[in-house]
Amino acid sequence: MNQVEVCFSPLLFEEFAKPNSIVVVVDVFRATSAIVTALHYGAKSFIPVSTIEEARELGKQGFLAGGERNGEVVEGFEFGNSPFSYMNDRIKGREIALTTTNGTRAINIAAKSADTVLIGSFLNLQALADYIQEQGKDVVVFCSGWKNRFNMEDSLFAGALTNLLLTSGKFKSDCDSANASSLVYRTGRKNLMSFLESCSHRKRLGHLNLEKDVEYCLQRDITDVIPVLKDGKLVRLN
Amino acid sequence: MNQVEVCFSPLLFEEFAKPNSIVVVVDVFRATSAIVTALHYGAKSFIPVSTIEEARELGKQGFLAGGERNGEVVEGFEFGNSPFSYMNDRIKGREIALTTTNGTRAINIAAKSADTVLIGSFLNLQALADYIQEQGKDVVVFCSGWKNRFNMEDSLFAGALTNLLLTSGKFKSDCDSANASSLVYRTGRKNLMSFLESCSHRKRLGHLNLEKDVEYCLQRDITDVIPVLKDGKLVRLN
Repeated sequence: MNQVEVCFSPLLFEEFAKPNSIVVVVDVFRATSAIVTALHYGAKSFIPVSTIEEARELGKQGFLAGGERNGEVVEGFEFGNSPFSYMNDRIKGREIALTTTNGTRAINIAAKSADTVLIGSFLNLQALADYIQEQGKDVVVFCSGWKNRFNMEDSLFAGALTNLLLTSGKFKSDCDSANASSLVYRTGRKNLMSFLESCSHRKRLGHLNLEKDVEYCLQRDITDVIPVLKDGKLVRLN
Repeated sequence: MNQVEVCFSPLLFEEFAKPNSIVVVVDVFRATSAIVTALHYGAKSFIPVSTIEEARELGKQGFLAGGERNGEVVEGFEFGNSPFSYMNDRIKGREIALTTTNGTRAINIAAKSADTVLIGSFLNLQALADYIQEQGKDVVVFCSGWKNRFNMEDSLFAGALTNLLLTSGKFKSDCDSANASSLVYRTGRKNLMSFLESCSHRKRLGHLNLEKDVEYCLQRDITDVIPVLKDGKLVRLN
């Protein structure tokens, strides 16, 4: 049986890094939901970069450029991490350089040690779980969190994926973080939106008038697209 | 209203450190349960040290010396972190140098930035909550975890303390870790022992034949003793 583990923060990832395992990076609100959406709508690839300067530089070289800090689009950038901004013809076939507060940072940390880095969100949850079950490898769900802290929405996703993998009978979990995430998900799954009402990040997004984004990102299984990191770029696996 | 926050790992503590807040360090299995027990049974103080060498050196200087690594007493030491080893007359009035895998390390990390460091366990939970409610300060519950990872038993304690503080009406929580801990505690509180059956650390302790210790450490409110860090030593606050 393979192991499923959950890492709650970029600061903890070194404790989970091991060769030959699959790492699923998640930033539900909103980087990984946006990446899944953009690839579903026809974008060719994402280059996750850590700094605004890098994204800007790639923008000058002909890439589309996205930049988000603290939930808002960085000045001078066309795209942030709202999934809705990627639902148009302009992104079709294009490569997008993206930097965000939490998500792209986690992707780049995972890339340093993992052979396989996949991108997760509620939008492609079942497709991810189906693919992972066929690989016969251990899995780490890497929650991007919020500025190095645990956050509720990413651990809800981690719990949902953990549940699916454990139910398959091909996975076990000796990881307390995975078991706690699974518990939190089972408590909240009937209504993720109202469950998140009590959480700080959810409130913060509320202040930014992102109700529509939040509602979109909590939808389950609207696409089969699985982004995978290949040579520094996130492309469609399938 | 004051804030209650929960830190899941020593690697995350820098994100929570702020002046004027109270930090409650917990390592349910078993360092902080042992410290509370020893002070209850008449020990004068604990000196939390990070290395086995430091504890050994203080042992030569007339202190009692305790050392635990990976759940077992270090060779050459009289005491480990089993609460039962401190329930005797030999410790009365004595000062004890202690180093453990997780707990004493967390105490020393907290000491670097916090004005007030208290020691928590289920054994002194209500006394702690009562004291904290009178202070008018923000609180961080610092879970020692297991080798830098989240663990279930420390977050159960964090959830229990969070619940008591929120119920008092003097505290609020914008911290997702605190809210998740509270949820986990509310799910498991009817039978902490059977709830923990599914957790890795609990299983590990089972392998070490520590059933008796585990059962003891999960008892609630058997003492009013609150250990506080003063000049590098943990002494009774009350």
